[in-house]
Amino acid sequence: MSYTLYYSPGTASMAVHWMLIELGVAFETRLVDFESGQQRSPEYLRLNPAGRVPTLVIDGVPYSESTALLMLLAERHPAAALSPAPGTAERCEWMELMVYLANTVLPAMRDWFYADTDGDPIGADTIRNLARSRIEAACERLDKKLADGRTYIVGGKLSTADFLAVMLMRWTRNMPRPAMTWEHIELYVKRLRSLPSFITLNTNEGLTDWQNTAV
Amino acid sequence: MSYTLYYSPGTASMAVHWMLIELGVAFETRLVDFESGQQRSPEYLRLNPAGRVPTLVIDGVPYSESTALLMLLAERHPAAALSPAPGTAERCEWMELMVYLANTVLPAMRDWFYADTDGDPIGADTIRNLARSRIEAACERLDKKLADGRTYIVGGKLSTADFLAVMLMRWTRNMPRPAMTWEHIELYVKRLRSLPSFITLNTNEGLTDWQNTAV
Repeated sequence: MSYTLYYSPGTASMAVHWMLIELGVAFETRLVDFESGQQRSPEYLRLNPAGRVPTLVIDGVPYSESTALLMLLAERHPAAALSPAPGTAERCEWMELMVYLANTVLPAMRDWFYADTDGDPIGADTIRNLARSRIEAACERLDKKLADGRTYIVGGKLSTADFLAVMLMRWTRNMPRPAMTWEHIELYVKRLRSLPSFITLNTNEGLTDWQNTAV
Repeated sequence: MSYTLYYSPGTASMAVHWMLIELGVAFETRLVDFESGQQRSPEYLRLNPAGRVPTLVIDGVPYSESTALLMLLAERHPAAALSPAPGTAERCEWMELMVYLANTVLPAMRDWFYADTDGDPIGADTIRNLARSRIEAACERLDKKLADGRTYIVGGKLSTADFLAVMLMRWTRNMPRPAMTWEHIELYVKRLRSLPSFITLNTNEGLTDWQNTAV
């Protein structure tokens, strides 16, 4: 099996990039240069008609949707056990959480960052206000889940839900109320950020902020 | 394994209810009476803290998120083959589509129907306008996918993606532009609505509109 990840630093491709590093599988990366609008180039739109990242080319076929890619990678590499085993109660909890992050937090993030271009710019503040309240409600819910001091968010070990959750928490860093102001989220994120795969990820994407050791 | 579905007719529980009927497994149903606000009763909030449907109690533990429940049921009943087999290209396409419906169409539906109560009612029209444009863009995309005349939306056979897609198309029936005004969606939906499990579903939920045979 072969993997080629089309990514842009710090965007929704980050969780998938992190997982590929953690898996230790062979993969190639292609930078999609947002500065020059490469995501809207005819070449890229052939791979990803929505002009978004990530695109993961699996055995020659391009696929999108970060949450789907994380779940697919977990299933294609069962030895890494980055999702709870099918048939267990942890599996149900993991699936529920993956979908919750995908259909509640991710769309609210889309609204927060793209309100001016996805809709009428005149109403953008209204869109952003609702997005903000939904993101903060999600932080509240995640903080409660983490209040028992667990290292990983679900199933007692590292899973795709951690990659997705930590990426989403990172995106709040310049919002009015960053996720790190929630007590249990802060402790959780700091533990996850100490993983060698997260450090490699930041190095490979050229990211310097929101790390345990400030640069 | 035991299943108890908490549902309200025609809501997000409908896809899961349809799948349980199609699977032919034993399950119980509990009506959550939205008219009397039962979804906000202390008893129901213990099962589903967000006060939404569906809740599926699996072996005594309550889970939510319709998309997650569909994927879990597919995995727990592999003989029914309501998702493409792991490791295939169809599996990747199915996963991508499930997540797309979950994180693009479902949240836009939430905004369309709940703009007045989820956010500031003063800005509700702005929220609804953006939601409408996203839902219509999704119909456009699904119509293109169905343009080859396929019977099922992905993988060449009935899957969870059909339950989810048809439910979402149903929700547009009183919107300014209903999904049935797209040529290939109309043909697709009419084929799917002729399934015995869909007819049983409507009978069991007491629904009389949006069926092939008008009542």
